[in-house]
Amino acid sequence: MSTHPSASDLPRGFSSASAHCGLKKSGLDLGLLVSETPAAAAAMFTTNRVQAAPVRLSQAHLRKSRGQMRAIIVNSGNANCCTGPEGYAASTATAQKVAQELGRLHPSQVLVCSTGVIGVPLRTRPLVRAVPTIVRRLRASPEAFALFTRAIMTTDTRPKWAAAKCRIHGKQVRILGCCKGAGMIQPNMATMLAFLATDAAISPALLSRALRLAVVPTFNAITVDGDTSTNDTVAILANGQSGARNISSAGAGFRSFTAALQNVCRQLALAIVADGEGAQRVIEIEVRGAPSARAADQVARTIANSPLVKTALAGADPNWGRILAAAGRAGVKFDFERVDVHLAGLLVCRRGREHPFSERAAHRKMLAKFVPIAVDLRAGQHSARVWTCDFTGEYVTINASYRT
Amino acid sequence: MSTHPSASDLPRGFSSASAHCGLKKSGLDLGLLVSETPAAAAAMFTTNRVQAAPVRLSQAHLRKSRGQMRAIIVNSGNANCCTGPEGYAASTATAQKVAQELGRLHPSQVLVCSTGVIGVPLRTRPLVRAVPTIVRRLRASPEAFALFTRAIMTTDTRPKWAAAKCRIHGKQVRILGCCKGAGMIQPNMATMLAFLATDAAISPALLSRALRLAVVPTFNAITVDGDTSTNDTVAILANGQSGARNISSAGAGFRSFTAALQNVCRQLALAIVADGEGAQRVIEIEVRGAPSARAADQVARTIANSPLVKTALAGADPNWGRILAAAGRAGVKFDFERVDVHLAGLLVCRRGREHPFSERAAHRKMLAKFVPIAVDLRAGQHSARVWTCDFTGEYVTINASYRT
Repeated sequence: MSTHPSASDLPRGFSSASAHCGLKKSGLDLGLLVSETPAAAAAMFTTNRVQAAPVRLSQAHLRKSRGQMRAIIVNSGNANCCTGPEGYAASTATAQKVAQELGRLHPSQVLVCSTGVIGVPLRTRPLVRAVPTIVRRLRASPEAFALFTRAIMTTDTRPKWAAAKCRIHGKQVRILGCCKGAGMIQPNMATMLAFLATDAAISPALLSRALRLAVVPTFNAITVDGDTSTNDTVAILANGQSGARNISSAGAGFRSFTAALQNVCRQLALAIVADGEGAQRVIEIEVRGAPSARAADQVARTIANSPLVKTALAGADPNWGRILAAAGRAGVKFDFERVDVHLAGLLVCRRGREHPFSERAAHRKMLAKFVPIAVDLRAGQHSARVWTCDFTGEYVTINASYRT
Repeated sequence: MSTHPSASDLPRGFSSASAHCGLKKSGLDLGLLVSETPAAAAAMFTTNRVQAAPVRLSQAHLRKSRGQMRAIIVNSGNANCCTGPEGYAASTATAQKVAQELGRLHPSQVLVCSTGVIGVPLRTRPLVRAVPTIVRRLRASPEAFALFTRAIMTTDTRPKWAAAKCRIHGKQVRILGCCKGAGMIQPNMATMLAFLATDAAISPALLSRALRLAVVPTFNAITVDGDTSTNDTVAILANGQSGARNISSAGAGFRSFTAALQNVCRQLALAIVADGEGAQRVIEIEVRGAPSARAADQVARTIANSPLVKTALAGADPNWGRILAAAGRAGVKFDFERVDVHLAGLLVCRRGREHPFSERAAHRKMLAKFVPIAVDLRAGQHSARVWTCDFTGEYVTINASYRT
């Protein structure tokens, strides 16, 4: 991943900007993404019962504007969650100020997102005061977008973005996305903060359907620590500025657009796992032969969140017994004496028992940046794929002192 | 906890012994507990779909002997799990050898337990060869019992035992127990290895009922890492040698026995959490005001297993937002704006938002060996209590290199 997208990756009619408003001690902590013209919008939000004020406000804005949005304003450094009516008022004031500064738009056309510490009151003044500055800085340039991706970071060690193109009735359409996330990652129906911009023309309803199809096997298939955030949001704006024909049905154009969108989401989701707090490597867990898709997902997710599996992976230890033991507690019926396990491409367990393999060779293969694990339950026809990372002492260090 | 029980803690008619048979590189790795006369027996085993050979054999033996047992043989250093028919044969051969050496008893009167690495074939010969030695060493002494508790250890840093007494119709009855366990701990219907001996007289059916009543709120309410072992077993032998009247109904005698048994189990369960891999402190999580007992347990367990909560506790960081966020993803309906959270005795969150408290005072209280967390959902009348430990870099270090 290069440091920023190229000019040809930029969807037409979008600009972005960033600023330091003071929520973080130093560095960028405010980002703004704007479509020049009203854009169809769709979003998915956290399923956590505890929802941050901006999540609630953005849901209300999407309903009110009937999926026609103009801007997304994001702050890092404070989640604005568990902050009571004052927190909601802070999000509302931010949207109002953005609408006012951009001119001729309604506050409900602005999505508001926050990420950072939970439970600390959000200071509204520095935020609102920074809005005129950030609006003045809006540019339709790759560099401005790259700074936007930096402004939304918290414990992330690097900005994460991805781009794809597709053709709709012969005309090129661009999708550009970015995201933040490194811990509190087990999205469900949405993930961390991810923002997507496209110059495709598509109705809010079809856009929403495409987004769900893209998110379920990508953002919703990753986990860093099994913790689901209170602020998870993935949002997309489609402004139609490519000039391509409107996607008005679930035909070839829709399929091609959804495939490109899924491609961007997969790149972003894998970038989150690769940047997982303290992570050394990405682990792909594929469960095959499960009695149902749900069962396959449950087994894959239980393995992916097992601290014992994840610490063994940190040590590049081919301890397949822990993989099988995690599968066994997933609440899914299977006969463990039929199970095969492949670790980093090597068959290490056949029919529920050790298959002779070279420990040294396995250890060496497990030192790679990407380690696949395949578990065949031989109990049905369904499969699932989940991505996670290893669990290192660094994760503990980061999270034992996050607020101090 | 002193290094070994006193003579008066020993239930009558039991002896124990230990040996080094070679499954571990050094140190005791074989333990034997014997009742001089046939004892009523009850046991609970892991709910993991992946079950070790000794778990299966012991279940068969309990059925076959109709709950009348004489001995428990335990090895550490190898779990004998995922080891195929040879693994089962190894457990069978061990039981046979013990029965033969003790004389005049059937192999089905012997319970077999193993703990250690999963998936490595168990060498039967060193084990069987050590049986005559360990039988010769049997002693009815506190020192012999203390060595037995050491012989069953794996990553445990200290032996764990507990004792209690009660009166049955005026006559004293003793209960003595020990256990091992530090990682792969989230027992469900049974736990790690725990062995209990009592000289009470009680039928296998009532003993089984007492055991369940004692285990559910103790061993089944602890978690170190959310991983359920393949070998979890808690077994009790009651030989009636106290001379106390037989407990034949669920009356006063049964209640007093069950209370003493629960007392022993609670001590042992808390000792496991306190010795959790890398743990610095024990965390008690009490959830009140839940819509059902199951919901309360689910919320408590989700908080107890959240890596973000556990790492914050390692840093003694009063990050209550993570506690609330974990509760919110537990799959239980509640309004987070009604929730109160007490951390180490301080009210830190009231009605879902920060309640002013001194960070320094909270930090200081959280450095204690025992930290209580109370979460009141205000969504019903039910409650649950779960114990866990903090999550340190040491846990990762232990588990990244367990087999090497």
